[in-house]
Amino acid sequence: MQSLDFTHDPAAQSWVASANAVDTDFPLQNLPYARARRAGTQQDWRIVVAIGDQALDLAAAASAGRWSSAVQVLLDPLARGDLNALMAQPVAARRALRQALFDALREGSPQQARLQGALVAQSALEFSLPARIGDYTDFYAGIHHAVTVGKLFRPDNPLLPNYKWVPIGYHGRASSIVVSGTPLRRPWGQRKGPNDEVPQYAPSQRLDHELELGLWVAQGNELGEPIPIERAEEHLFGLSLFNDWSARDIQPWEYQPLGPFLAKNFGSTVAPWVVTWEALAPFRCPMERPADDPRPLPYLQHNANEVAGGVDLQLEVWIHTAAQRAAGRGPTRLACSNMRHMYWTAAQLLTHHASNGCNLQPGDLLGTGTISGPLPEQAGSLLELTQGGRQPIDLGEGETRTFLQDGDELSLRAYAERPGARRIGLGACSGLILPALAR
Amino acid sequence: MQSLDFTHDPAAQSWVASANAVDTDFPLQNLPYARARRAGTQQDWRIVVAIGDQALDLAAAASAGRWSSAVQVLLDPLARGDLNALMAQPVAARRALRQALFDALREGSPQQARLQGALVAQSALEFSLPARIGDYTDFYAGIHHAVTVGKLFRPDNPLLPNYKWVPIGYHGRASSIVVSGTPLRRPWGQRKGPNDEVPQYAPSQRLDHELELGLWVAQGNELGEPIPIERAEEHLFGLSLFNDWSARDIQPWEYQPLGPFLAKNFGSTVAPWVVTWEALAPFRCPMERPADDPRPLPYLQHNANEVAGGVDLQLEVWIHTAAQRAAGRGPTRLACSNMRHMYWTAAQLLTHHASNGCNLQPGDLLGTGTISGPLPEQAGSLLELTQGGRQPIDLGEGETRTFLQDGDELSLRAYAERPGARRIGLGACSGLILPALAR
Repeated sequence: MQSLDFTHDPAAQSWVASANAVDTDFPLQNLPYARARRAGTQQDWRIVVAIGDQALDLAAAASAGRWSSAVQVLLDPLARGDLNALMAQPVAARRALRQALFDALREGSPQQARLQGALVAQSALEFSLPARIGDYTDFYAGIHHAVTVGKLFRPDNPLLPNYKWVPIGYHGRASSIVVSGTPLRRPWGQRKGPNDEVPQYAPSQRLDHELELGLWVAQGNELGEPIPIERAEEHLFGLSLFNDWSARDIQPWEYQPLGPFLAKNFGSTVAPWVVTWEALAPFRCPMERPADDPRPLPYLQHNANEVAGGVDLQLEVWIHTAAQRAAGRGPTRLACSNMRHMYWTAAQLLTHHASNGCNLQPGDLLGTGTISGPLPEQAGSLLELTQGGRQPIDLGEGETRTFLQDGDELSLRAYAERPGARRIGLGACSGLILPALAR
Repeated sequence: MQSLDFTHDPAAQSWVASANAVDTDFPLQNLPYARARRAGTQQDWRIVVAIGDQALDLAAAASAGRWSSAVQVLLDPLARGDLNALMAQPVAARRALRQALFDALREGSPQQARLQGALVAQSALEFSLPARIGDYTDFYAGIHHAVTVGKLFRPDNPLLPNYKWVPIGYHGRASSIVVSGTPLRRPWGQRKGPNDEVPQYAPSQRLDHELELGLWVAQGNELGEPIPIERAEEHLFGLSLFNDWSARDIQPWEYQPLGPFLAKNFGSTVAPWVVTWEALAPFRCPMERPADDPRPLPYLQHNANEVAGGVDLQLEVWIHTAAQRAAGRGPTRLACSNMRHMYWTAAQLLTHHASNGCNLQPGDLLGTGTISGPLPEQAGSLLELTQGGRQPIDLGEGETRTFLQDGDELSLRAYAERPGARRIGLGACSGLILPALAR
């Protein structure tokens, strides 16, 4: 279980003024990482740390700051843009770096004068993927999503009998994961309606988002060796907002018997900011597994002291249509949910993944699956919100949506807040839909 | 379509005598690539080319040989062990290198004296994976496998209605692909028999092989852009024997609704040798798609001149048990099949994969799926050969098998031969089963 330390002190303030605003995603207590450079330049990529509306450039900070030799060793690969190197470090080293950055950015730090020049406005940056993603796995840990979607595909049998025993997951495509802000081309694909005699190949008409979190693997395991559940959180580096775009008309025709493929792998969008598992420590909470559900098999049981397997993290989905932008109107919030609605904990997902000896590696990305809440308005996809496209959503001014239209911009946001802790956020994960290519 | 050139001349001989043996896998007309170094050393990895029982070390050959500047540029990354760099080259460049290597190794070549010292006996080498595998996809193009396995899982509905329209595939795990010769640890996993009240977590008792070919992607495509079928073969670098080990007791319990996951990702074995698509040109053959099957949708239709979408490549599966080895007995052949039994061509798999804009990259590996033939003894897995474990196979001397036992070594082999062409082979793809770890 995670423990709190001085980096979680809600009273701590930063010498970067914008980090002390009550509504910032990035106070001193957060300190997420991204891979970035000054926009429009050919600067080498480097890792940066968010602080208020600024970013501490670790390439500049590594040379300008004064660091212990243990911390300097951790900063050097980050200065070269290599977040995987930090992910590969033991949890103690990762925490030591967090503490050093906290100290350096804290109000009254003797480092202020040295580091002032290493700050860059976030608005002046462009971002790449935060890390090299070796393998990407997508889980299905949102039970309310599984039930609602299951009802659409299998009305008599919405939740399959394995769901409460097996943390269901499948492999996804790493090459087509892009960073927030990258436009997404509407995919073509085969589809066949129930009344069609033969399938057709055409642009998807049922393009959807999926509200997910991406969990970043820290240290890996050797091929053939498991990760015991009580060590699993040490292997978890942090998380990012993650949108696993889906083509709902391609999926039902292709997915039997081996699962989703082209309905998913045309693109997934991840936020630039990786919020560390340590930053989320004040927001741990019990899971919502009903008392009469089966107890997980022993290899997936958290030990008795670890009741707080969940994270109380608010999740939001926003749409900004071309018409809204043209009229100068703001976006519409489509849904609110919370990470605590996951049926399986992050540790259970990780332990299950390695339970057959599958080797995880630093920088692997584990999608949680769509995290819907129990109420209809908490659904993390349009498929659910519109009951399979039958119930359009009213966006005002005469505009409605069943599925995403060309020109729509879809954004995910997330934040954690509770009395006695400093609010932290995950930034945004956005993508604009481009029309399908002509063929 | 591929054309033949002087590198396919069956009369051509090499100055490496063992390459002229009639039964070698590696005559002058083959020239497959691997990534290797002298066994037991810390030598840097380099790419080598098989010739008879020798290998041409391209690190040595790049400096000792005399090459055109165009060829030298191609050799330099290979000398550093980077096969992905060659995969990324246009097909014309890849063919130019093949021709240069053919000329250099041909009987009477003026390069013989310079290159003699760049030969290493294959038996003195150790191998790594031939390339960096970004993403690994497994298809399901063996229709006889799909029907036989479908009967076991769904007796009333063996071949699903999408099979003859959609080249079914799913994403696999890249990190756990190992090179031939790497032992495989028996996986643990959840399983639940039809009469079990609850699942259990235990070592797999139904460990199986899958006889596949791994297709290596050459040049990739940009995210969002398709690969037209008539260009698909240019994007194909070559192929290797590939064993997609499977745990048949984990699979039925976990695979609904998102497909196989832990039943597969504990390990897959690929042969060290990558045989180029060019080397297979003399063995192209028509596909076996029955005339009354639906015509593929236009994006998957080979143009009228390209009738020879298939490859006539013999495939074999061998088992060598611990008892056989202890008694000095040889291995038993479990099955014979042929690549021509694939329902979809390599080009169709590649084009379908990119048909939604999914970006393929040099070094991506596409498994064909298990290539079984139409006859029971041509089955590419034990699941099929033993009718789901009900019909043990007799290995002689009182030994039988339903699924793989600890100590079994499973090997795949493949070769192409026909009158008027020089026989070529793919080498071997082997793995020894280690007992499950105690937990």
